[in-house]
Amino acid sequence: MLDLTVPATARTFSGALVMPNLKTPITTIDAALRYKEQIEAKSGQESFTPYMTLFFKSTYTRDFLAEAKRHVLAVKLYPEGVTTGSGGGVKSPLDRDCMTVYAAMEELGIPLCVHGETPAGFVLEREVLFAPVYDELARAFPKLKIVMEHITTKKLAVFLDRHENVFATVTLHHLLITLDDVIGDALSPHNFCKPVAKTPADREALRELALAGHPKLMFGSDSAPHTRDAKESCCGAAGIFHAPIALQMLAGFFEKGGRIDKMQGFVSDNAARIYGIEPREKSVVLEKKGGLKGGLIVPESYGNVVPFRSGEALEWSVKEIR
Amino acid sequence: MLDLTVPATARTFSGALVMPNLKTPITTIDAALRYKEQIEAKSGQESFTPYMTLFFKSTYTRDFLAEAKRHVLAVKLYPEGVTTGSGGGVKSPLDRDCMTVYAAMEELGIPLCVHGETPAGFVLEREVLFAPVYDELARAFPKLKIVMEHITTKKLAVFLDRHENVFATVTLHHLLITLDDVIGDALSPHNFCKPVAKTPADREALRELALAGHPKLMFGSDSAPHTRDAKESCCGAAGIFHAPIALQMLAGFFEKGGRIDKMQGFVSDNAARIYGIEPREKSVVLEKKGGLKGGLIVPESYGNVVPFRSGEALEWSVKEIR
Repeated sequence: MLDLTVPATARTFSGALVMPNLKTPITTIDAALRYKEQIEAKSGQESFTPYMTLFFKSTYTRDFLAEAKRHVLAVKLYPEGVTTGSGGGVKSPLDRDCMTVYAAMEELGIPLCVHGETPAGFVLEREVLFAPVYDELARAFPKLKIVMEHITTKKLAVFLDRHENVFATVTLHHLLITLDDVIGDALSPHNFCKPVAKTPADREALRELALAGHPKLMFGSDSAPHTRDAKESCCGAAGIFHAPIALQMLAGFFEKGGRIDKMQGFVSDNAARIYGIEPREKSVVLEKKGGLKGGLIVPESYGNVVPFRSGEALEWSVKEIR
Repeated sequence: MLDLTVPATARTFSGALVMPNLKTPITTIDAALRYKEQIEAKSGQESFTPYMTLFFKSTYTRDFLAEAKRHVLAVKLYPEGVTTGSGGGVKSPLDRDCMTVYAAMEELGIPLCVHGETPAGFVLEREVLFAPVYDELARAFPKLKIVMEHITTKKLAVFLDRHENVFATVTLHHLLITLDDVIGDALSPHNFCKPVAKTPADREALRELALAGHPKLMFGSDSAPHTRDAKESCCGAAGIFHAPIALQMLAGFFEKGGRIDKMQGFVSDNAARIYGIEPREKSVVLEKKGGLKGGLIVPESYGNVVPFRSGEALEWSVKEIR
C-alpha cells in the first residue's frame, strides 16, 4: 500500500503523522525507524517528513520513552478492538500501568494521540462513552498534550474546550458525510469507517468548529486505504482513502462555508504549533476549476483502492506545488 | 426466488400476506391473481394460503377496489423511493387523490398496510418523521384499518396505542438486532434491511410489546431474499431472509423473554383477528434441542441466498407439522 499512499500524500503534504496500527503494531524504536525509512524511500520528495508514532503499550518504561522521543512525535492509544489493527490495544486505559506511562509521557513532553471509542456500547455512542477517559486523563496529567483523533460528534466538539491540554483532529470525510451516506440508501462500503459517520447535527458541529478556525483543531486525514475487494466483498473493512484529493476537497469545503481563510490553520499551522514542529515549507496552490464543467473527476480507483467519492466531480485542483 | 421462498414459507406457515413491491409492482387484479397462482403452484401444500396485496396507487377507483376486495386482503402504501421496489410509490401520501382512495378503502373495509418511512430525512429518523402521516390518516379515516408495517422504533411502539384503528407488525430481525449488528464491527450486509435496525432502546421497546402479547401487534416477517451477490457485492441490497427458520428463532426469542405463551398470538391469532381471516389450521410443534449441543445450525445458504444468522446455532427446531 505504501507505493500508493506515500507518493499520494507526499505530493501535496509536507509531513504526515504516521499511525502505528499496522498488522504488527509499531511498538519499538527499530520498527518505527524501519517504517520511516520505507516511507522515505517511497516518497521521492525531499520536502516530505513522516512523523512517526508508537502504538501505546502499558509496558513502556520511562527510559524507553526518553529514547523514543528522539525518533517519534507521539504515542497513539487504541482501546482493544475498536478499529482496524487495534487487537493489541489496551483493555483499561485508566489502569495503573497505563497511568504510569502517561506520567512519563507528560514529564518527557510526548503527546498522546487517542482513538477515543469504547469497544463495547452502541456504535453511535462509543465515542461519547469514551469521553470520561479524556476527562480523567486531562485532569490527572495537565501538562500532557492529549489529541482526540478524528472526533465525530457534537459532544466531543464541545468537549474540546473543557481542558487546555486537550486537542482534536477531524477528518475530511466526517466534515462531508453522515450515516445517511453509509446506510441511507444501499450499503455504501466506501463511506464506511471507524468511528462511523454520525448525524447531521454532529457533522454540523464539526463543520462549525473547522470553519471558525478553532486553534485546537487539526486536520487528521485518517486516509486509510483498503483494496476494493476488502471494501466491497463481505464484510466491508472500515476505512476511507483520500490522500491524493484531500486538499482539493477541503478547499471546496472551506469555500462553501465562506471561510477559505481558515483552511491554512486547519490543515497545517495548528498542528505545527500544537506539536511544536517545523516541517520544511511547501506551497500548494489550489484553483477552482468549476466542477463538472472543469472536467475534474475523482478517479474510479488508484490501483486497487477506490477513493472517497470516486467518480464524483472535483471543483478544486492543484495548480502548482513549490 | 419463489422456488426458494414459497416452500420455505408454506412449510411452517398457514398463510402469508404477499407484498406487492415486485420489480413490476402488483397494481391490477390480474397481476395479483397470476402471482397468487404462481405461489400456489410452488407451495405444494394444501394448507397454505397466499393473501394477496395491491401496490397502492392514487389512481385506484372505488369500483376497482370493490372488485379487488374479492381477491386481495389489503393494499400496501409505499412512499416513493423508501425501499426495494418502491420506485412507483406515492410522492405525497396525504394529497387529495390519495385521500379519495383511502376513503373508498375505508368504506369497503380494505386494510391499508404502510411502509412508513419518509424518503428524505436522516436515516434513523425516517420512520418517526413519517408518524404524522399515520396520525392524520387515523383521524381522517377512523374505520380504516391501518397497519404500520415492520416498526423499528420506541416512538412508533408507543404510537400504536394512540388510535384504535392503527395496528403494527414487527419483524423477527428487529426483535433481535440493532444498528450494532449492521455497522458495529465490519459492515454486515446480511443484517442490512429497510427500515434499518435502530438503537438498543428501540429494540427493547419492540421486545416489550411482543412479550406483553400486545393485541394489536402482529408478526410481519418481512423475509426478503436477495442473492448472495446482491447482498455482498457493492452496494448491498436491503433485505433479510429467514422464512425457513423464523418460527424456530421466534420460539427462542419468546422463551428467553419468559413469555412463550405470547408467541401464538403474535405469530397467528392477532393477525387472523385483525384481518378477519381464518387460515386453514396448521399445527407446528417446536422443540428445544439445546443450541450447539443439539447440533442445529442455520444453513450457510439456501441456494444462492444467505439467510439471517447463517452458520449460527439454532436452539429450537420443528418437531412436527400437522
